[in-house]
Amino acid sequence: MNKKTLGNKSLIYPMPVTIVGAEVEGKPNFMTIAFIGIVNINPGMVAFGSNRKHLTNKGIVANQTFSINIPSQDQLEIADYIGIYSGTKIDKSRLFEVFYGKLGNAPMIASCPLNLECRVTDVLERGGIDQIIVGEIVESYCEEKFLTEGNPDVEKMNPAVFTMYDNRYFAIGKYLGKAWSMGKDFKPKKKP
Amino acid sequence: MNKKTLGNKSLIYPMPVTIVGAEVEGKPNFMTIAFIGIVNINPGMVAFGSNRKHLTNKGIVANQTFSINIPSQDQLEIADYIGIYSGTKIDKSRLFEVFYGKLGNAPMIASCPLNLECRVTDVLERGGIDQIIVGEIVESYCEEKFLTEGNPDVEKMNPAVFTMYDNRYFAIGKYLGKAWSMGKDFKPKKKP
Repeated sequence: MNKKTLGNKSLIYPMPVTIVGAEVEGKPNFMTIAFIGIVNINPGMVAFGSNRKHLTNKGIVANQTFSINIPSQDQLEIADYIGIYSGTKIDKSRLFEVFYGKLGNAPMIASCPLNLECRVTDVLERGGIDQIIVGEIVESYCEEKFLTEGNPDVEKMNPAVFTMYDNRYFAIGKYLGKAWSMGKDFKPKKKP
Repeated sequence: MNKKTLGNKSLIYPMPVTIVGAEVEGKPNFMTIAFIGIVNINPGMVAFGSNRKHLTNKGIVANQTFSINIPSQDQLEIADYIGIYSGTKIDKSRLFEVFYGKLGNAPMIASCPLNLECRVTDVLERGGIDQIIVGEIVESYCEEKFLTEGNPDVEKMNPAVFTMYDNRYFAIGKYLGKAWSMGKDFKPKKKP
């Protein structure tokens, strides 16, 4: 074993590409977020990290609501655009057809294959650049054409992933196997 | 727009396949976790969710340390095996060559391309099935052969992703573009 140390870096591979939305001073604003993951089931909960100076963060903290939108690969250019330019410079409310759900003030992007409507449960300040926002998914929205047997299907939605520090986007590739199944008959060898 | 509602489900696509490790009663134990994401930079921090009844959770809470190991696709069968069978049934300490780092009691898997050594900052109990564990990455470990210009390279590590509720594993696919770059020249149309 000959491992190099890389420091206290944000190295999970790969990360999902999402667009987080919030209402800021009465208008929808959006930011691109890959520092995000599911952290609970029943109810579904998410946690993500984002610079507390971002306009969208301010809207989330003010309203205690936000949305997560999963773009398809053909929305990657606009997702990257949203990640580059601040809502203080461009009016992001004009970029998308927006809809609202149960919470009333979590703006969701109609053209994204999947939308999660969330309420904040926790905002953690832990000394880094980012605010850690934890939320409960109160409802999720998906068009029938992206579902297979009632579940969202990545082969229909075509989401993208992001890799840190080389800053690249990739597609999802070939199917490898069924979870909670392909390991059933695995026979461990004694460790060396 | 004709969206169906899917409820308060854990629907982020895709999720990274990781193996979380902890010392349980003096021996390494491991569980497979896809409910995980980076939530902070400088320092790197992660959040994940896992059933509080899991043996590994008990070790994490007792020691306040854990590891995240990113398996390659050719370790997917053993990763799934670890996810199916509890450490109360099989001795997972014998499955891998294990190494330790700065914290001394966060067992890491030598054969996984990337290892993150973490200390717990928060354990949130929010009423779901899972405990939400937030941690700081104190060090990361990677072999030179998986790096490109000093950064972990998914095309060399070959990690896998997981999709929820259809329970499938996929490879990472084709390169789509550079982040903080491909959106620079995007020209928005006025919204419809």
